[in-house]
Amino acid sequence: IAEMKRVPYHIQRDVLDELGVDQVAEKSDFKISAKEKFREAVRCTGPRFKSCFLSFVPLLTWLPRYPFRENAIGDLISGISVGIMHLPQGMAYALLAAVPPVFGLYSSFYPILIYFIFGTSKHISVGTYAVMSVMIGSVTERLAPDSDFMIPGNDTNSTSLDIVSRDAERVKIAATVTFLSGIFQLLLGLVRFGFVVTYLSEPLVRAYTTAAAIHVIVSQLKYSFGINPQRYSGPLSLIYTIIEDCALLGQTNIGTLVVSIVTIIGLVAAKELSALAARKIPIPIPVELITIIIATVVSWQMDLKTEYVQPTTILQAPVAPAVSLLGSMVGDAFALAVVGYGIAISLGRIFALKYAYKVDSNQELIALGLSNSIGGLFNCFAISCSMSRSMVQVSTGGKSQVAGAISALVILVILLKIGELFEELPKAVLAAIIYVNLQGMMKQFGDIRSLWRTNKVDMVVWVMTLILTVLFNPDMGLAASIAFSILTVVFRTQLPKYSILGQVPGTDIYKPVEDYNQVKEIPGIMIFHSSATLYFANAEMYIDALYEKTGVDVAKLLSHKKKLEAKRLRKEKKAAKKAKKEAKKRAKEAVKAAEDVGAVEVGPDPDTDTTLPQAIILDLSPVNFLDTVGVKTLRNIYKDYGEAGVQVYFCGCQRGVVESMEKGDFFNEKVTKSILFSSVHDAVLYCQQGNSEEVIQGTHL
Amino acid sequence: IAEMKRVPYHIQRDVLDELGVDQVAEKSDFKISAKEKFREAVRCTGPRFKSCFLSFVPLLTWLPRYPFRENAIGDLISGISVGIMHLPQGMAYALLAAVPPVFGLYSSFYPILIYFIFGTSKHISVGTYAVMSVMIGSVTERLAPDSDFMIPGNDTNSTSLDIVSRDAERVKIAATVTFLSGIFQLLLGLVRFGFVVTYLSEPLVRAYTTAAAIHVIVSQLKYSFGINPQRYSGPLSLIYTIIEDCALLGQTNIGTLVVSIVTIIGLVAAKELSALAARKIPIPIPVELITIIIATVVSWQMDLKTEYVQPTTILQAPVAPAVSLLGSMVGDAFALAVVGYGIAISLGRIFALKYAYKVDSNQELIALGLSNSIGGLFNCFAISCSMSRSMVQVSTGGKSQVAGAISALVILVILLKIGELFEELPKAVLAAIIYVNLQGMMKQFGDIRSLWRTNKVDMVVWVMTLILTVLFNPDMGLAASIAFSILTVVFRTQLPKYSILGQVPGTDIYKPVEDYNQVKEIPGIMIFHSSATLYFANAEMYIDALYEKTGVDVAKLLSHKKKLEAKRLRKEKKAAKKAKKEAKKRAKEAVKAAEDVGAVEVGPDPDTDTTLPQAIILDLSPVNFLDTVGVKTLRNIYKDYGEAGVQVYFCGCQRGVVESMEKGDFFNEKVTKSILFSSVHDAVLYCQQGNSEEVIQGTHL
Repeated sequence: IAEMKRVPYHIQRDVLDELGVDQVAEKSDFKISAKEKFREAVRCTGPRFKSCFLSFVPLLTWLPRYPFRENAIGDLISGISVGIMHLPQGMAYALLAAVPPVFGLYSSFYPILIYFIFGTSKHISVGTYAVMSVMIGSVTERLAPDSDFMIPGNDTNSTSLDIVSRDAERVKIAATVTFLSGIFQLLLGLVRFGFVVTYLSEPLVRAYTTAAAIHVIVSQLKYSFGINPQRYSGPLSLIYTIIEDCALLGQTNIGTLVVSIVTIIGLVAAKELSALAARKIPIPIPVELITIIIATVVSWQMDLKTEYVQPTTILQAPVAPAVSLLGSMVGDAFALAVVGYGIAISLGRIFALKYAYKVDSNQELIALGLSNSIGGLFNCFAISCSMSRSMVQVSTGGKSQVAGAISALVILVILLKIGELFEELPKAVLAAIIYVNLQGMMKQFGDIRSLWRTNKVDMVVWVMTLILTVLFNPDMGLAASIAFSILTVVFRTQLPKYSILGQVPGTDIYKPVEDYNQVKEIPGIMIFHSSATLYFANAEMYIDALYEKTGVDVAKLLSHKKKLEAKRLRKEKKAAKKAKKEAKKRAKEAVKAAEDVGAVEVGPDPDTDTTLPQAIILDLSPVNFLDTVGVKTLRNIYKDYGEAGVQVYFCGCQRGVVESMEKGDFFNEKVTKSILFSSVHDAVLYCQQGNSEEVIQGTHL
Repeated sequence: IAEMKRVPYHIQRDVLDELGVDQVAEKSDFKISAKEKFREAVRCTGPRFKSCFLSFVPLLTWLPRYPFRENAIGDLISGISVGIMHLPQGMAYALLAAVPPVFGLYSSFYPILIYFIFGTSKHISVGTYAVMSVMIGSVTERLAPDSDFMIPGNDTNSTSLDIVSRDAERVKIAATVTFLSGIFQLLLGLVRFGFVVTYLSEPLVRAYTTAAAIHVIVSQLKYSFGINPQRYSGPLSLIYTIIEDCALLGQTNIGTLVVSIVTIIGLVAAKELSALAARKIPIPIPVELITIIIATVVSWQMDLKTEYVQPTTILQAPVAPAVSLLGSMVGDAFALAVVGYGIAISLGRIFALKYAYKVDSNQELIALGLSNSIGGLFNCFAISCSMSRSMVQVSTGGKSQVAGAISALVILVILLKIGELFEELPKAVLAAIIYVNLQGMMKQFGDIRSLWRTNKVDMVVWVMTLILTVLFNPDMGLAASIAFSILTVVFRTQLPKYSILGQVPGTDIYKPVEDYNQVKEIPGIMIFHSSATLYFANAEMYIDALYEKTGVDVAKLLSHKKKLEAKRLRKEKKAAKKAKKEAKKRAKEAVKAAEDVGAVEVGPDPDTDTTLPQAIILDLSPVNFLDTVGVKTLRNIYKDYGEAGVQVYFCGCQRGVVESMEKGDFFNEKVTKSILFSSVHDAVLYCQQGNSEEVIQGTHL
């Protein structure tokens, strides 16, 4: 350790050159960039086609190697359990999407089979998802509102709703927006843009799903109370809907309300019981299915009025998406694509981490994209994956995508055999199922408390995401929330902590002097440190803080500069006069004058000598990048202090920072790279060597 | 130097404690925060009231000390020169604001007098400004379009424009939006929010003014060609206006076009000549004034048709702003407030730096706010400061705000004595004056080339600002541009450069191994460095890059973990069996089993021993802050590698980063702060001490 050399940046470069150290090509092999990802995607042609095709259809890779004896029974039981869950969830979420329940069953069938072929996650249960369904619902209700389907009633004054054509239109809209979102996912997957999901930070996703759950609940209140409020869309529609609901509370259908309350209480109680019984029974009790069956029977007995219209055929042929509608739903489809992918990949990653395999984010995008785009052709609505179903799939022994395929078969049997039995199911029961399923998302409100304790900025992101998503709708709210969470990066670096560093006695470690009493500043040398990158949003503050900490007033510094200037001019005049008078001694005098000028410019001024340090070292190690404002700021600092006779050194610059300075013409003949140092200590030693012996002794005794 | 100790973070803390080093209070005195700025503002009451009042009215401070003999003549000459410039600019920019020219003269009078009292910059020439005027114009033309003022003509089919009432309405609108923008500036100044201007980075301001100049030029084309296109407002209005102008080119008034071309050529030629003559004549030739006088005379002689309506009184009493209009112009007024302040403060700072005095950004906000709000009451439109006039003010010897006051007096004389003479001035001439004045802003297109060379991201900001401001209007464009420039901070840190650091031989300096051939990795220790802050947008990439560089597959790591898990379970079973069999030796065996478990968990696995490093050091010095995603990422890295028997150390953490880790529950009984080190070298030495003697010798021989 003792022999270690402290070398400034330039010397070190020279040393490296002498040692035959060449700088390797500009671009590192390791650099992971979007460009390379794209190249990798493009490379997927030619000789590597076969392996590429296999990675595009993961089924071909894993199915031949399927360990039948080990996994088959687990997958079968798990598949049936999940299939049984799909039934009530699919029907209930169809209500959210504002389409007839049977389309929820379609959505629990086609997309799952496609994901089985293309998906890479073994444990997530793709299918209907509350948040996606409510997003679809906002599109269908906006583009096909009830008011468009009023037909003259029996007597001339009244009109009645044409439910059949309204539902047909809504199914078309839901299928089209689903198709489009699938295409978006497919495109994002093909250009390997899976990383877009990184903008969905965890606090954002959790707040967003909570806000979406609030939207879901508000949209279902009408079914629980049996009222018929006006539909609203656009920003603040949630507020308007609540106001409308409250205004209509007087018209509550008591029967419906009783059914709702009884169902909710029953469901909660049954869930608690099944949680208690979970230790003894390995397979969860299909509480929702039982509820639906009971409700259907009761409803059939009591002849409760419902609005259901069963489509004539159970399985329909694929239909082309409504091209004319595409333009009006681009934004919604993109939001669906991003949210659906975001939810699926984050759940997929959790299970992949737990069970030690890898989920390919781009392949997931392709799998979901195909599920949605093909599903859209079969009148499905957009799917993602559901936390509750995935938990059941795993806990009942599901070990691969086969469980998903079996659950799809369960849905197929139900569709073909007993689907029409559920025709009589009251919407209040489905709404109750939805509420109870959203428990988990409501529990996420606890995040506020834990984030308050751990990270306040992230708490603000959480709260703002909730507010923005509740006030605007899920699509606009997502965009606004992402924009806000990106803004926080600026907030976090805009008000950095500035500090003066001092030496920890006897070491080469430099720490902020205000943090430790014994850390001492080095006489004559000021080491300035900012906790954040220097860029346009905090450049001015950086200079202000530096001036304040160095105890220098800009005005003072500059008046000093002016004085020097005036002095210089006087000297020059004097020199010129002398030169005129003594023509023969001209050459000699001019040299002297020039020397005087040099001395005045470089030497510290006697007026400011007591306050100004001899050297300032800027610790730039936290600087991530330099923009033009940053380069200009450093240049001004160097120039201003230089004119006042204070030398400025920079240390800890990353290579990218040095490159930005080079490109920004920071360096020239006068300002060379000799002012750059690898570490604070190097710079300090260099300063001390340059100064008188006394200073060095002063600090090192 | 030789005795310097390398100590890990925790040891160092202990040492500091022993030395009696207490951590100083949490909040540093030096910390500059918005909170403190606010406090400072609040503190401005009570005993300090007098000095506070003086700082609120800078005139009271500097006027009594005005060095009459030194400054008076310079200020007088400069004031007259600037006043002469105010006249044509005020009239021309009134055209941009879509109000009669005399209101441009008002705007060159009242606000300047008020700034004289409250302003702190000695050299800027406040008054009408092209960009502000065109922003006002977009408001007036949106809220009072020509179509609202059509009155039935003489014959029943035709309608004619009621110019008098249209202009009266437009003046009212312009005055109201000016008043409101002044109130915004005043409020921002009172709460000391002068720092908002930091979001206006230099590339953004330059591109924005260029884009505004394009808006100005397009809005004036109709006067140069003598055509009457339809007015457009809102996004893309510039494009529509150009299309409309092109369609109407056939109707060009040849006389007007000739006047335009002659004026432009004349102005450019005269400016070139005056630039050439500048060395001989100290005062610039008032080219524009001469042009206006000539044009007025010619127009009066040739009886060119104009639309001017002179208000009945020259100086009007103040009028209350139109409160009913306030709601519809909040956004425009805010944009005006920000832009006006941004331009004024940036010019003010340039001169302050040059002439060594200080411009108080909050006092500037107050001064501009009062100028605009009081000006608005006197039917002025919003002012800022003009580069060209300021340059003239300085070059003709202006030394203080007195020059501004004199220029206002010049305008007053013109208003009272000869204002009505300019009644006949054709708009084509004013348009020509505007074009020629915008030369400088058009030259800013050269920025693209220089930014391309120096900083590509800033070039993208420039181009995007131009496009956004041209496509949307200046108000929306400003918001979009600021949002985009903030986004670039994320772009810049989202794709960091990841590298493995190695030791520069014989020193304690660590550099990326891919940059230098001779920099060698330390056997068994991997030092990982990211060029950017670790946060939600790049957390996943960080982990991926780390896994890639360490040559570890996540799956491999996790399957290894599972193996360990299985092993542990088997051992536990074995131990349990043994315990059952040999009941009397139970206590002893249990201890052994526990020891075995511990050994298996901690020790490196023989399978992966060859590929995995023994320790990983993460260099976190470029990390500015840690969000919850960042803390979680570090925790996962520590846990995953820890389970595979690889110890992870962090070094170079800033205090804020350590605090975020503490709050985020990163540390517990098992994970203590002993994994934190001050520098890479400290961590390396600690690792080597912990390992076998051979390794240390290997690296240090």
